Amino acid sequence: MNKPAGPLEPAAIPTGERPGSKKVYQPGALWPDIRVPFREVAVHPSANEPPVTMYDSSGPYTDPHAAIDIEKGLPKVREPWVVSRGDVEIVADPRQVKPEDNGFAQGEHLAPQFSAPRRVYRAKAGAAVTQLEYARRGIVTPEMEYVAIRENLRRQAPGIRDGESFGAEIPDLCTPEFVRDEVARGRAIIPANINHTELEPMAIGRNFLVKVNANIGNSAVLSTVADEVDKMVWAIRWGADTVMDLSTGRNIHNIRDWIVRNSPVPIGTVPIYQALEKVGGIAEDLTWEVFRDTLVEQAEQGVDYFTIHAGVRLPFIPLTANRVTGIVSRGGSIMAKWCLAHHRENFLYERFAEICEIMRAYDVSFSLGDGLRPGSIADANDEAQFAELRTLGELTKVAWKHGVQVMIEGPGHVPMHKIKANMEEQLKHCHEAPFYTLGPLTTDVAPGYDHITSAIGAAMIGWFGTAMLCYVTPKEHLGLPDRQDVKDGVIAYKIAAHAADLAKGHPTARAWDDALSRARFEFRWEDQFNLGLDPETARAYHDETLPKEAFKTAHFCSMCGPKFCSMKISQDIREAARAQNDLTNDQGMEEMAKKFREAGGEIQVPLTPAE
Amino acid sequence: MNKPAGPLEPAAIPTGERPGSKKVYQPGALWPDIRVPFREVAVHPSANEPPVTMYDSSGPYTDPHAAIDIEKGLPKVREPWVVSRGDVEIVADPRQVKPEDNGFAQGEHLAPQFSAPRRVYRAKAGAAVTQLEYARRGIVTPEMEYVAIRENLRRQAPGIRDGESFGAEIPDLCTPEFVRDEVARGRAIIPANINHTELEPMAIGRNFLVKVNANIGNSAVLSTVADEVDKMVWAIRWGADTVMDLSTGRNIHNIRDWIVRNSPVPIGTVPIYQALEKVGGIAEDLTWEVFRDTLVEQAEQGVDYFTIHAGVRLPFIPLTANRVTGIVSRGGSIMAKWCLAHHRENFLYERFAEICEIMRAYDVSFSLGDGLRPGSIADANDEAQFAELRTLGELTKVAWKHGVQVMIEGPGHVPMHKIKANMEEQLKHCHEAPFYTLGPLTTDVAPGYDHITSAIGAAMIGWFGTAMLCYVTPKEHLGLPDRQDVKDGVIAYKIAAHAADLAKGHPTARAWDDALSRARFEFRWEDQFNLGLDPETARAYHDETLPKEAFKTAHFCSMCGPKFCSMKISQDIREAARAQNDLTNDQGMEEMAKKFREAGGEIQVPLTPAE
Repeated sequence: MNKPAGPLEPAAIPTGERPGSKKVYQPGALWPDIRVPFREVAVHPSANEPPVTMYDSSGPYTDPHAAIDIEKGLPKVREPWVVSRGDVEIVADPRQVKPEDNGFAQGEHLAPQFSAPRRVYRAKAGAAVTQLEYARRGIVTPEMEYVAIRENLRRQAPGIRDGESFGAEIPDLCTPEFVRDEVARGRAIIPANINHTELEPMAIGRNFLVKVNANIGNSAVLSTVADEVDKMVWAIRWGADTVMDLSTGRNIHNIRDWIVRNSPVPIGTVPIYQALEKVGGIAEDLTWEVFRDTLVEQAEQGVDYFTIHAGVRLPFIPLTANRVTGIVSRGGSIMAKWCLAHHRENFLYERFAEICEIMRAYDVSFSLGDGLRPGSIADANDEAQFAELRTLGELTKVAWKHGVQVMIEGPGHVPMHKIKANMEEQLKHCHEAPFYTLGPLTTDVAPGYDHITSAIGAAMIGWFGTAMLCYVTPKEHLGLPDRQDVKDGVIAYKIAAHAADLAKGHPTARAWDDALSRARFEFRWEDQFNLGLDPETARAYHDETLPKEAFKTAHFCSMCGPKFCSMKISQDIREAARAQNDLTNDQGMEEMAKKFREAGGEIQVPLTPAE
Repeated sequence: MNKPAGPLEPAAIPTGERPGSKKVYQPGALWPDIRVPFREVAVHPSANEPPVTMYDSSGPYTDPHAAIDIEKGLPKVREPWVVSRGDVEIVADPRQVKPEDNGFAQGEHLAPQFSAPRRVYRAKAGAAVTQLEYARRGIVTPEMEYVAIRENLRRQAPGIRDGESFGAEIPDLCTPEFVRDEVARGRAIIPANINHTELEPMAIGRNFLVKVNANIGNSAVLSTVADEVDKMVWAIRWGADTVMDLSTGRNIHNIRDWIVRNSPVPIGTVPIYQALEKVGGIAEDLTWEVFRDTLVEQAEQGVDYFTIHAGVRLPFIPLTANRVTGIVSRGGSIMAKWCLAHHRENFLYERFAEICEIMRAYDVSFSLGDGLRPGSIADANDEAQFAELRTLGELTKVAWKHGVQVMIEGPGHVPMHKIKANMEEQLKHCHEAPFYTLGPLTTDVAPGYDHITSAIGAAMIGWFGTAMLCYVTPKEHLGLPDRQDVKDGVIAYKIAAHAADLAKGHPTARAWDDALSRARFEFRWEDQFNLGLDPETARAYHDETLPKEAFKTAHFCSMCGPKFCSMKISQDIREAARAQNDLTNDQGMEEMAKKFREAGGEIQVPLTPAE
């Protein structure tokens, strides 16, 4: 069933600017070398409005001036930042690829190695090279300034603050010092392995824009190297902020190399998956030594965050006995099986301090895995889930003591009325470390549509305070997502994340909606398409029924037709009011209202019919 | 641009049972003649579970024993119920079709008339033939018992009551007397025109299952008769509970006839659309007489509810002056234009009592239109919107005084943090009359995906108490929805409605999720597909990667492959626990947990590895 691993096909990688968009960069003030990318969408001159600046996680692939060569990987822009801090050393004897790293794949089944040379770094003995440690020491790193500029969307002034933030403390403008402070307090992380020098830094935290993660990765059953690199580039093109490579099966090491070297966004993994492959898929045969070796392997490759299921403690496993769907986390079920087979405590828990020491040497962030998350509505918010969450809170303190950045993974399947408790428990027990949730799915009854069942829950928990939303695709529970599924999942989650930003009152959020709504009201169809999350689809839907260019300025669409277009009639009304009042601005209706009130309820200004 | 109206093509109407489903009926106890339909989904014998009973709004089209002939229409099952009450008379001189009813369409552009003969009823002079009036008099009608059986899903015992209902008073079991009481109090309506005798009655109310409306209808630009009948049948096949025919342009009368005669679900319209067509599209030329004539025309046809924009009062129109998107309701903008052109109060408001008298004579329910609903995030919850809402509350009391059933329409575009206020204001000002909301869309930035932006808001407002959710399709703001859009819209809204039922703690809701989750955990793939909202899509997604029949019983899918399937590992763990404890039921893990607790935290039962 395996496809041969096959070479990469660079032609398949989607490049080029998005419709109506221009790639622009802003330099740093503290760090003039940094160039923070944005996507600028210009609107029609008739609107007399400045271009709209969009957050842009798509990397150099959308820069028409960038030379993309995935055999070489992206430029290592961060390498000077990392080296200049003086606290890292080149690893003289980096770990060599072993046959088991790729599941003993051979011949045509072995994916090609990524061959461009690079240096491998780690912290000098005793040095703590994490953004958390720098922040604690008061250092504003280039990564922090990069994040501040990025989150600020080139604003000079605060935006509209209409929202309910549930205690989030989002500033009017995002400064480098604010970023430093949030990282120092552990309320935000900047996942940025010193070996991922191709990275465009970003932050995950409750007081920043809500982020979206997209999962990719092959399985034992399907997919090739080229497909996975393409999926990564495709996912970020639509706005994914981080990508998790959840590959299992053969070629894990080589696929990951290709992905990390070509990724401008943080890459996360679940190291236990590869460790399990190394022991032939037998959970009981897992050992600390195999796992440790895998951590070093992946840390040297440049993985930015590791999901570690250290909260699946032996005593919690029986709490899942009466669940409808048992343990549904892959990593959680593997560790549960190991624990029971050996009748021993989870070695990830017992060795947690050692894991911290490894991760600190490369600045790999923790994503503390929720191995006991509920997999059905019936199992939501049960004791197994919350016992693990409290443990993750304890482990957060340990990681922080070791100077390692931490976020906390969350559910899962949760009905709407139980979502808020998840956020509250997380805040209470995990000391405001960023929350990173999968969905949650708000019902189990719609296989094939779990991007929607979960976008509902994701929007809500994002509003309540989740910092990053892990997408769910339409294929969830059914099969490995393909390219279209990746796009559908990312778009659904960009909607959820933005709806959350709006509801939180994030000061950059409203400007986007308002710009699009003005375009809509003024029948600037091209602007409406280009300002949307998916211009190509919006345009295609419009053009299905009214394809001619002339209809790109028509004051109606095929939904209502010309006579029944409310926006057209609304405009007619305003025109009439304006004409009547001989006003050249939009004050006509206000005048009317004022006179109406003055007259005690009778409008005194007769209007000419405006057909 | 108009397609010729064309004949109906019966072959296009989708019929037949849905996958894995059996159409079953339950008779009434008070009214033995009624046959309430359900869809029964049997699960694999290995599960040792009874079939799952599903609410079924699909009508006779999914009954393999029903003879479908859309030229004749559906059987008039309600006619004896209506006639036997003794309070209606056959209209001796029913209104005849006039050329303007079909927009003066002629020749090949004129849609064929629905020609099967039928009697037209109205109330005898002085009689009040509404379900509200019957309920007030203590009469449990066949419609009420039908609804009670339908809502109860053949349960004998209450289901799981885990939810937060925000004051909704959902009983453990739904009785005919409960239905009567809710209708009498105005907290629920049963839209059931005495001339829509093909109807399978249903209820809309906060203490019943959350319902979904699908809009269909041609526009001046597109679509034929056959397309619209097909869309109606298609929409109810996927679960739409009511259908609004929002046709504009030519052939409105004839298309509606075909739809009503073939619809088992309530049909709603916005009569002002047809009235406007009758005056050539010139809003200023609308008159009470033309509108009145249209009400009678549609009431005689059997339309079950009318959207009436009587709350768009003259003094409120200036309140929209500074909005980003003005007035976005088609009916609202038409009436606003009329009001301003004539400098007069809305004639729908002034003639409201007369409208009530007409509607009472046929039991047409009000859907009091929110003509000033916000069309963008910027305009949400503004004074124009709430001024109208308060007026709708006043009108509700007038309608009730006349014995007419009422529901209230709601927004629109609303960010998450402003949704709850909409429900609270509606409850406060509209005296618990059912709320019927469009979405709301929680952001404006995703044209092409507004079924998702709005499913988020719909799920939330449904949870808070909205009784019926008006769907939004992916084509919203862009064009007229086609068949696929109708399906996508209905599915997204069935998800929202069910997520709302679950969160409210509706006692029928959880059983469905739990049945599907058990099927998922036990790798009963066929059951998982068939129990889902869209079995065909779920199956197709699964089969894209693992098409062979053998994989329909495999303990994994292509997402994770066999070694990484958490559910498989979870089952292995339970098997091991069971074997170890020599237990034949699922108590092994519990035993373990108990012994663990007794031993003060150390599990005393060694387990055999279970690979």
